[in-house]
Amino acid sequence: MNVDGRPYRTIWLNDDGASVGVIDQTLLPHRFEVVHWRTVEDAATGIRNMVVRGAPLIGAAAAYGMALAMQDDSGDENLQVAYDTLFRTRPTAVNLRWALDLMRQTLYNSAERTGAAYALAGQIADEDVKNCSAIGDRGEALIEQAWEQVSRSRPVNILTHCNAGWLATVDWGTALAPIYKAFNAGIPVHVWVDETRPRNQGASLTAWELGHHGVPHTLIVDNAGGHLMQHGLVDLCIVGSDRTTASGDVANKIGTYLKALAARDNGVPFYVALPVSTIDWTIENGVRDIPIEKRAPEELTHISGEADNGDVRTVRLAPKDSPAANYAFDVTPRHLVSALITERGVFRPIAEEMAELRRRVEECTAGEYAEGR
Amino acid sequence: MNVDGRPYRTIWLNDDGASVGVIDQTLLPHRFEVVHWRTVEDAATGIRNMVVRGAPLIGAAAAYGMALAMQDDSGDENLQVAYDTLFRTRPTAVNLRWALDLMRQTLYNSAERTGAAYALAGQIADEDVKNCSAIGDRGEALIEQAWEQVSRSRPVNILTHCNAGWLATVDWGTALAPIYKAFNAGIPVHVWVDETRPRNQGASLTAWELGHHGVPHTLIVDNAGGHLMQHGLVDLCIVGSDRTTASGDVANKIGTYLKALAARDNGVPFYVALPVSTIDWTIENGVRDIPIEKRAPEELTHISGEADNGDVRTVRLAPKDSPAANYAFDVTPRHLVSALITERGVFRPIAEEMAELRRRVEECTAGEYAEGR
Repeated sequence: MNVDGRPYRTIWLNDDGASVGVIDQTLLPHRFEVVHWRTVEDAATGIRNMVVRGAPLIGAAAAYGMALAMQDDSGDENLQVAYDTLFRTRPTAVNLRWALDLMRQTLYNSAERTGAAYALAGQIADEDVKNCSAIGDRGEALIEQAWEQVSRSRPVNILTHCNAGWLATVDWGTALAPIYKAFNAGIPVHVWVDETRPRNQGASLTAWELGHHGVPHTLIVDNAGGHLMQHGLVDLCIVGSDRTTASGDVANKIGTYLKALAARDNGVPFYVALPVSTIDWTIENGVRDIPIEKRAPEELTHISGEADNGDVRTVRLAPKDSPAANYAFDVTPRHLVSALITERGVFRPIAEEMAELRRRVEECTAGEYAEGR
Repeated sequence: MNVDGRPYRTIWLNDDGASVGVIDQTLLPHRFEVVHWRTVEDAATGIRNMVVRGAPLIGAAAAYGMALAMQDDSGDENLQVAYDTLFRTRPTAVNLRWALDLMRQTLYNSAERTGAAYALAGQIADEDVKNCSAIGDRGEALIEQAWEQVSRSRPVNILTHCNAGWLATVDWGTALAPIYKAFNAGIPVHVWVDETRPRNQGASLTAWELGHHGVPHTLIVDNAGGHLMQHGLVDLCIVGSDRTTASGDVANKIGTYLKALAARDNGVPFYVALPVSTIDWTIENGVRDIPIEKRAPEELTHISGEADNGDVRTVRLAPKDSPAANYAFDVTPRHLVSALITERGVFRPIAEEMAELRRRVEECTAGEYAEGR
């Protein structure tokens, strides 16, 4: 997507054919800076410190990390060292493991490892862009429908939670992909951006990326969505998903469930945009069976922002002695979800449609293996 | 309530019989400091700058402000000047006007104005304490019921939003009064405290006052309540009310509606504690007819907290160019409210019970007038 008119991805191979450029997301929204990785250690540090974040982007970053390692020393031992170094950075990230496994397996059997590593890393990144773009196309149609429903008389108001934008992927994003597609196609849109406490990914990242691409948006607190929906100020919601069950329950950033309840109470469609890779076909009941990560209470009791003098400072918000609990995700039961927007199509979370989605995913996977992937 | 074992109110007449002590709430939760008002200007500045806040406390503070003015000059002209000075501080606060009208009317007809002013201000403060204490007693019974329902096997988990505690009143609070009563009576309670963005009254005030009275509590983000209720970690919710309609719709801090939706979805009782003075008997439909204040976007895009060196600093959280909308309240429709806890009793928001509540309020008001109030 664009940053002030210039197109960017979140990660790319530089013109030298060796080093890798990434946007340093820890500095957003206060500063836009590009960092260049030259070694696997650079990549590992960047992933660990959340210079890059978001499951799809972490996968691509790890793949490029392997390529940087191969350029330095393409021996068997270093291949395994690089794998371990990168795996330790975010061990619970599913895409990280997937990308590393694919890289290691492919490279073991490769004659020219460095070239193969860069090629496969590029392919992983391009594949993510292709999937997100397809999600965007599927979702754009839903936004266009909403625009028709108001007789093209005013912009379509869309509420989103957290950051499932291009900054979380290689490009386009998941929840924001339909919005960028609609905007680029000239459909007038306006986005209500939940700030998304405690880590404020909405305020820091979603507002920043929408603003720099030129998409009209307004930042709100997470408490405000219900009021907006009561007053007809939201036409549809689109959020991302960290993990989706076979039945269509959705684990996403904490607070997603509350917005889905408000959407149902006010007849507002609630869409979840996701690549099919986030579906866990082994789990049915998300509320019961998806474990919810508890993170450090300091993410809640302290916050960072830019002071008047331009310094980024951390301040404490809560009383020193008050305990705090920091649940990172919640589960939105499928009956609150209007449809899942995937790169394979739009499916309602009911048994027949989930079965159809599963068939299509399995067909495609079989097809890809047949093509030699 | 207690601050580290020592009982306090939020406002009191000092031993000199003239100056008025208040807790400076702008410094909480970082510093606990008492300020002394000696003139009507001190009081007006304190109310304007939110050294004291919360509708009931503002009423009592304005009454003491009138007393301070009378001590200085009890003439007719100064009585009106004091009224105007104090009224201008927070012109939309209903209790402010009510207290000032009562003071002015009583003092005009009073032979010894200074003494009468202090006496009536003290009476207004005491009346608030009495009402809040009665709300506490009514609500305590509901907490005790919840404790019986879990066979007294574990603490009762209560979720609250914003600050409707003793800091918002003269003592006890509204939503927190039942919790203090239960705690003081030895019923084990644990309170989930919503931080309550954007102004963070939960993190700054509710957590502080519960902690210093010794009540077990845990701070959470506003996004977390739904997840907690899904997992059986909330036995009941109690919130306050800024304005209640004749039918029982409740306008309260933004985000209250979302918690009420989650409570209904999970079969958790949702109580609203309020003095009957906050009921507007002229309005039925709250969502349609209660105007919702929009406040400065900076309350959302910027935040204050304590830096490492102990300074309280303001930092910017959002991108410089992103617009923000700051709706201060929302309306929870009556069908999501289990009952209203008032000083006149506990009433469900259904026609018969609201009519009965109204009868009791009108009887009592008539009685008070008969007694010469």
